[in-house]
Amino acid sequence: MSETGFDSLWSALEPIGRHPGTGGYRRFAWTAEDATLREWFAGEAAARGLSLTLDRAGNQWAWQGDPDDTAGIAVGSHLDSVPEGGAFDGPLGVVSAFAALDALRADGFAPARPIGVVNIGDEEGARFGVACAGSRIMTGALDADRARSLTDADGTALGTAMGAAGHDSAALGRDDETLRRIAGFVELHVEQGRNLVDQQHAIGVASAIRPHGRWRIDLAGEANHAGTTGLTDRRDAMVAAAAVVLAARAAAERHGAVATCGKLRVEPNGVNAIASHATVWLDARAATAEQVRAVVADVAEVASANGGRLSEESWSDATTFPDPGRLARLLDDAPILDTGAGHDAGILAAGGIPAAMLFVRNPTGISHSPAEYAERDDCLAGVAALATVIRELAG
Amino acid sequence: MSETGFDSLWSALEPIGRHPGTGGYRRFAWTAEDATLREWFAGEAAARGLSLTLDRAGNQWAWQGDPDDTAGIAVGSHLDSVPEGGAFDGPLGVVSAFAALDALRADGFAPARPIGVVNIGDEEGARFGVACAGSRIMTGALDADRARSLTDADGTALGTAMGAAGHDSAALGRDDETLRRIAGFVELHVEQGRNLVDQQHAIGVASAIRPHGRWRIDLAGEANHAGTTGLTDRRDAMVAAAAVVLAARAAAERHGAVATCGKLRVEPNGVNAIASHATVWLDARAATAEQVRAVVADVAEVASANGGRLSEESWSDATTFPDPGRLARLLDDAPILDTGAGHDAGILAAGGIPAAMLFVRNPTGISHSPAEYAERDDCLAGVAALATVIRELAG
Repeated sequence: MSETGFDSLWSALEPIGRHPGTGGYRRFAWTAEDATLREWFAGEAAARGLSLTLDRAGNQWAWQGDPDDTAGIAVGSHLDSVPEGGAFDGPLGVVSAFAALDALRADGFAPARPIGVVNIGDEEGARFGVACAGSRIMTGALDADRARSLTDADGTALGTAMGAAGHDSAALGRDDETLRRIAGFVELHVEQGRNLVDQQHAIGVASAIRPHGRWRIDLAGEANHAGTTGLTDRRDAMVAAAAVVLAARAAAERHGAVATCGKLRVEPNGVNAIASHATVWLDARAATAEQVRAVVADVAEVASANGGRLSEESWSDATTFPDPGRLARLLDDAPILDTGAGHDAGILAAGGIPAAMLFVRNPTGISHSPAEYAERDDCLAGVAALATVIRELAG
Repeated sequence: MSETGFDSLWSALEPIGRHPGTGGYRRFAWTAEDATLREWFAGEAAARGLSLTLDRAGNQWAWQGDPDDTAGIAVGSHLDSVPEGGAFDGPLGVVSAFAALDALRADGFAPARPIGVVNIGDEEGARFGVACAGSRIMTGALDADRARSLTDADGTALGTAMGAAGHDSAALGRDDETLRRIAGFVELHVEQGRNLVDQQHAIGVASAIRPHGRWRIDLAGEANHAGTTGLTDRRDAMVAAAAVVLAARAAAERHGAVATCGKLRVEPNGVNAIASHATVWLDARAATAEQVRAVVADVAEVASANGGRLSEESWSDATTFPDPGRLARLLDDAPILDTGAGHDAGILAAGGIPAAMLFVRNPTGISHSPAEYAERDDCLAGVAALATVIRELAG
């Protein structure tokens, strides 16, 4: 494996969408940054003589060999980020996929199946609110009409944004032709926690993704003047939102779950204007779906008591990956971990594709932040592990 | 008085900065909308042969007669709005000033003093956070260096925005030349409450402005992944912000004050990212400064317990207007009211200018909202009352 290959792939990608001050990334779906990332992907595919296709959701697939002839092994991840995200969540998996393919070629590996590198779009859902939108649309887990009508903070619909980026949103929908091409999918990802640090391993294998979902709570208030309106005459949507945020935290503690209100929108958001509307987004996850549902029920009750309404934006049942032990044995008895983070591999697994995930150690344990990190040696170990897994599955 | 004069003034102003969907106004300082409003003001001044000058804060003064020779009576208000504001808060005072001058001229009134119509800029502080910025800068209550460095939500400094709008921010500062020209100031304003509705009077006279201020609470969190970070490992700035919002409400109840958190900024504001920073703005007002200070002290304590810091953005002591009974007697024994809303008239009064305020009945009692309203007959009664007051003060 060429180590410098990994480095040059990584450094080409590094500046795209990075804020010069904070170092945080803003790589949102169907933006100029996203287009630049897609161009980079297409360029790397072309440089390797891979055949590039887009599926109906706009995800990029770069195949070596003909997957319509024999279904292939696809490896990759996503290139988009959360607001002020880190460099590794997503891109590490795509860069490692290209680097692993290069390593296998350099070794003269002759696969029995096609090998595909993939960039799945809009994994974080940072712009339109639904995580794993690219894989959900492609597997049919997200309805095409609903996807098209999702809106961003400026009120732009996903369908419109996709069209503006030169992609035909009329084609959105489950893509059976693409799904038939995939005999297996492997996603390498930076770990979003400190399990591998604690266990002193560079690489881990995923056993399962915990059940998780997103909900939106709309709270109506009444606009009025902050100085002239008595407390009892107010319907203050900010006060209602605060009650919902604290209720989510308390419910998570009560039910052994995690719950986060990371995003909030207030109208009109003026210092001397009582809030006329607030929208709070809830992200909740736990070991079991029952625990998550209990949290959501508690939050819905508080929302309702404050004149609000809770609606589901996305839901992912627990996903288990088939036979993680097999990959762990291949990889020097790598630790087997479950995770509270959703991933495209989980959506594909739920859609019937044999899927697997590898994790790369993250010394900070932090993710969705510029502090997210992986040591170069661990990244190279990840590329080697991915090459080993491809060799096993496509050999 | 020409009734159609009022109507045509009003209808020319009405569409500027109005959202076509909600009907709410967004007229922020030193924006394109603000420039259009200023052009309208300059045009109305020119149409009446008034001599237009800008003071060092960029406020517009349109004089009939030479106030450098004999100090004059200035009447007016502001044209800017809160986000999603109403049509009346501010513009009613400016339109009524022009209409009252027209009525006096039509009556052949020969004043002993100059009469000025004024548009004071940035009263709401919607963009840069400090209310009554135009009058505060002009009277020296707001330091010029601090004013220049106030920033909006995009990080643009007031000085930069003012420069981009073609005004020299280097000139900002207390303007003694302008202050010397003003023998008295009268601001007519839509009532922001239902006192006049309850008392069945179209017009009221202000006795005082209650003490009030704005504070900013910065709360630091730590960005991390919503799904993989345990509750006890979190520093969640959104949870801290919610605690502050509820603390402000509770403290206001405890101390007989009003307190509002109408504006909140969260970073990175992503659904699956724990908030790394939150800023909450507090607006607090009461009958006495002691009550306001007690609220702020309680909120500061909760902010501090959540790792945050409270800082003062503006403070206005109680302002009493001289001899409101004199104007009330002139105006058919109009009711005398105090108010919880800050106004430029209060800033000028605190700066030593003899100032007065008239209120026009608001049937909804609501302000800072598209629901803010005044009946046309009440508006015309306001113009007549303002003309009566000018006749008394400038006669």
